[in-house]
Amino acid sequence: MKIGIFGTGPVGQTLAAKLASLGHDVFIGTRDPAATLKRNDNDSFGNPPFRVWKEKHGSIGFDGFAEAARHGELLINATNGNGALAAIDAAGADAVDGKVLIDVSNPLDFSRGMPPSLSVCNTDSLGEQIQRAAPRARVVKTLNTVNAHLMVDPGQLAGGDHTMFVCGNDAAAKAEAKALLEGFGWRDIVDLGDIANARGTEMYLPLWVRLWMATQSPMFSIKLVR
Amino acid sequence: MKIGIFGTGPVGQTLAAKLASLGHDVFIGTRDPAATLKRNDNDSFGNPPFRVWKEKHGSIGFDGFAEAARHGELLINATNGNGALAAIDAAGADAVDGKVLIDVSNPLDFSRGMPPSLSVCNTDSLGEQIQRAAPRARVVKTLNTVNAHLMVDPGQLAGGDHTMFVCGNDAAAKAEAKALLEGFGWRDIVDLGDIANARGTEMYLPLWVRLWMATQSPMFSIKLVR
Repeated sequence: MKIGIFGTGPVGQTLAAKLASLGHDVFIGTRDPAATLKRNDNDSFGNPPFRVWKEKHGSIGFDGFAEAARHGELLINATNGNGALAAIDAAGADAVDGKVLIDVSNPLDFSRGMPPSLSVCNTDSLGEQIQRAAPRARVVKTLNTVNAHLMVDPGQLAGGDHTMFVCGNDAAAKAEAKALLEGFGWRDIVDLGDIANARGTEMYLPLWVRLWMATQSPMFSIKLVR
Repeated sequence: MKIGIFGTGPVGQTLAAKLASLGHDVFIGTRDPAATLKRNDNDSFGNPPFRVWKEKHGSIGFDGFAEAARHGELLINATNGNGALAAIDAAGADAVDGKVLIDVSNPLDFSRGMPPSLSVCNTDSLGEQIQRAAPRARVVKTLNTVNAHLMVDPGQLAGGDHTMFVCGNDAAAKAEAKALLEGFGWRDIVDLGDIANARGTEMYLPLWVRLWMATQSPMFSIKLVR
């Protein structure tokens, strides 16, 4: 399938590489492609610059948000939460209308330091903001409750015996997202209902960040025990 | 141990009965004891009036918040979140100072209907509000991520193979709370740090409520898989 991914950070890279390895035709988009390719320094988490990754993944297309959106029959927003709405805006309504748009981002606000708070929560969510910004896109919120390595390979932790959540307004879009997750190895996928339920999974992030600090590793997940 | 519990709802009742069955000397307190005993109707969840429960648990003391606080060497706040600060205020500083105060409540706001939002979150929490309202109490936030039956008997679900969280500013108070939890059967207890981490476990509640709706049962929990 032709897949367009917004965001060149570790999440976008990890999703793009995995989807390409599964045979998909992947195109990654960013705000300013030339500036992204010019960057030579590691990011604040110590990850090498995008250019280094790009050289190793020559088959994956790369350009602006609009080009990635036009390429994709299915789109994934993997920007950081603060950049999500600008990415949707830059992609353009025509290029996203009618398409499944999987949003894996979180509205983390690091402006007060660690642990981050959320820039939107409680009576709204980033998932809902994205759905309102692209009302004819078929937004599915998922994968935002684990780190990028677990997103695409849940089996590396406890043989995959942990839980993922999906929500969104369009049942067929959720079924498509679930099929993609199952391709990654997810076996326990809980449908929470419409996109307003993104409040639930995004508001789990403050606990996620604290569990990361308590366990000293981002390679954890939660299992819904019932 | 002499234990004072604030709150006569299902959570207070369940904790009081369990602690009494374990040999503790339990006293339950409420805002208006006479009015609580006069009530004859089931509550909005279909639970019988407190009077019916009280008649079955004659050895458990019952009076106002202040009397319960004076009775307890260890205190538990099991009011609903909206009543927590008023309960602490009614208990009086003298009766709570220096004592371990376990807060199991959540700031759920049902004023917009289901699912509830939170009345405080993100840059503050009810746990922190309680600690500020009783600065010399040794507040420990815990048990607020499961329903009352699982609080006191985690073993009835998956043999107890799921996770509980604690946080608070006082290490000795957390050790005392952990011992109490282990007495209930909790085996995996994660210390998140100081009381500000109550933001993490309270902000999990919007996901908890949605999981309750998705699974059609409150008898679930999460296991931290790492």
